[in-house]
Amino acid sequence: MPVLVVGSIALDHIKTPTAEHRQLLGGSASYASVAASFFGPVQLVGVVGEDFPPQHRQLYLDRKIDLAGLEVAPGKTFCWSGEYELNMNNRRTLSVELNVFEKFDPKLPESYRETPYVLLGNIAPSLQRSVRRQSLKPKFVVADTMDLWIEIARPDLLELLKEVDMLILNDSEARMLTEEDNVIRAGKKIAAMGPRYVAVKKGEHGCLLFGRDGEFFSTGAFPLEKIHDPTGAGDCFAGGFIGHLARTDDVSFPNLKEAVIQGTLVASFCCEEFSLRRLEKLHADEILARRKAFGTYIA
Amino acid sequence: MPVLVVGSIALDHIKTPTAEHRQLLGGSASYASVAASFFGPVQLVGVVGEDFPPQHRQLYLDRKIDLAGLEVAPGKTFCWSGEYELNMNNRRTLSVELNVFEKFDPKLPESYRETPYVLLGNIAPSLQRSVRRQSLKPKFVVADTMDLWIEIARPDLLELLKEVDMLILNDSEARMLTEEDNVIRAGKKIAAMGPRYVAVKKGEHGCLLFGRDGEFFSTGAFPLEKIHDPTGAGDCFAGGFIGHLARTDDVSFPNLKEAVIQGTLVASFCCEEFSLRRLEKLHADEILARRKAFGTYIA
Repeated sequence: MPVLVVGSIALDHIKTPTAEHRQLLGGSASYASVAASFFGPVQLVGVVGEDFPPQHRQLYLDRKIDLAGLEVAPGKTFCWSGEYELNMNNRRTLSVELNVFEKFDPKLPESYRETPYVLLGNIAPSLQRSVRRQSLKPKFVVADTMDLWIEIARPDLLELLKEVDMLILNDSEARMLTEEDNVIRAGKKIAAMGPRYVAVKKGEHGCLLFGRDGEFFSTGAFPLEKIHDPTGAGDCFAGGFIGHLARTDDVSFPNLKEAVIQGTLVASFCCEEFSLRRLEKLHADEILARRKAFGTYIA
Repeated sequence: MPVLVVGSIALDHIKTPTAEHRQLLGGSASYASVAASFFGPVQLVGVVGEDFPPQHRQLYLDRKIDLAGLEVAPGKTFCWSGEYELNMNNRRTLSVELNVFEKFDPKLPESYRETPYVLLGNIAPSLQRSVRRQSLKPKFVVADTMDLWIEIARPDLLELLKEVDMLILNDSEARMLTEEDNVIRAGKKIAAMGPRYVAVKKGEHGCLLFGRDGEFFSTGAFPLEKIHDPTGAGDCFAGGFIGHLARTDDVSFPNLKEAVIQGTLVASFCCEEFSLRRLEKLHADEILARRKAFGTYIA
C-alpha cells in the first residue's frame, strides 16, 4: 500500500567546528519520505523554490518517491542554518528563511486522494488539517508535531488530534501539551484527547506507545556508539513507522509495536551521518540485520 | 541458593511539604536485602547502633533475613535527613550523621563465608573489597556504587572492578567513571575495566546491560503513573537482580537479562511509597503479575 507524506522540504546549512555543509537536503518531508521508501511506494507533498538542486530531486527519484505532489513555486526554497558545538550535542539555529514555505498551501494531486496511509509530517497543524481533509479514504493517519506548534498553534493542534489515528511527539513536548510531569500520565492523557494512539519519543532512551484503551508498549533505542547528527531522526521514525504499517497493511496493536521498532531502526541509521547521507546509501537488508540484532538486545 | 548482602543501614528522617517521617528504615543493605528476600534466603551484613528500633529488626525477621552478620555497636545508628520539594522530584540532604557507620568494619560470620551469591551494596569500595576477600567461594559477585566513590575513592573502586563479576551504577556515574559522553561507549569501557558485566541504570528510562564479550541488553522501566519516593530503587534493583540469580542458580547471559527485569520490577514497587513501606506489604505474586504485564509492554 502506498504512503502519503506531507511536510517541510528545506535546504540546511550546517556549520561544525571542522566543516561547513551547505545546501543539504532537509525538512520533515524529506526525512520521512526517504525513511518510508524502504518499506514501499511513497507519495510526497511539499513545496520547493526554483533554486532546488537537481541532485536533491534525484535523491527522491532514486528512492522511487512519487513527486506528483511536489510543487515548485517562484522564489527560493525554505532554508535553515545552524551551528553545532564541538561535542555535536548542542545545536543552535543561526537563521531561518521560510521563502516559498511561507505561503505553502498543500494540494493533493488526484492520484493521492485515496492513499490509505497518511503521514502528516511536522508542519503547522492548520496545514496538516488541510491535507487530512483532502484525503478521502485514509485507513491510518499519523501526525507528527513539535514544541513550536504547542506554543503558537495549540487550538489548531487540539482540533487535529480529533482527526488523526496517532500523534507522535517527544517526551518534553508530551509534558508541555498536557502539563503533566509524569510521562506515563502525559501519554495516557493525550490518547484521551482524540488520537487512538500516541507515540512518545525519548531519543536515546527509545519510545513509548500508548493506546486509548490502555494499550502500552515501550522500547529502547538501537544502541549507537557514535551519534553524528540526530537531525531528522524523529521524522525518520515517523516515516519508518508508517512505512511498516503500509507494507503490512495491518493496524492491529501488535503490528503497531513492530512499526515502532522499524521506525526506531531507520532513525538509528539517520543519526550516523549528516543529513540524509546515511539513508542515501542504506539497503533494506541493513535494516533487517539491525532488526535481528535488536531482537536479542531488547525485552 | 542464599544471597549475602552487605551495605549501609540507616535511619532516614524525611520532610515533605505535608508531613514529616522520622526513623524510617533506610540504607543500601536494607533496601537490597528486603528486595532479595522475595526470591530466597538472604544473609545481611551491616552495623546499627543501640538505638536501632526493634520494629526495623522485626521487618528483617518478617522477611526471613538472616541477621547473624548484623552488628550492634555502641552508639547511634547512621542517620540521614532530607527534604522533598512539592513535586517530590527534588530532594536535598539536610544532614548526615555517620555514627556507628564511621568505624564499620564488616566481618562475615562463619556461616556466610561460602555463600555463592554476593551483593556488595553501595558502601565505600574499601569495605566492599574487604567483604569480597572474606567470601571464600563466590559464584557471582555484584558491586553497586555511586558518584561519591568515583569522586573520592576512585583507586579503590578501580581495584574492586577487577574482583567482581558485575558492576551496577547509573548512567551519569558511568559517564563520570569513563569520561565518555556516550553511554553505550561508557558501558563497554567499564566492562573492559574488570567486571564481566555492567548494568547501567537509567531511572524511568530503564536499564542497559553490557557484557565484556559484546553482549548487550536494554529494557525499559515498569511504567508508573505516580512516583512517591525513588529512594532505594537502585538498591532494590540490585537486590532483585542477585535474588533472581540465586533462586535460579544460573549465571548465563539470558538469565542475567531476566534478572535485570526482575530487579526492575522490584524497584518499581519501591518507588510507590516512602521508605520500605510498599515492600513491607508486597507479595511475590504481585511481582509475578507485574512480570506478566511487563512481557506485553516491552520489546
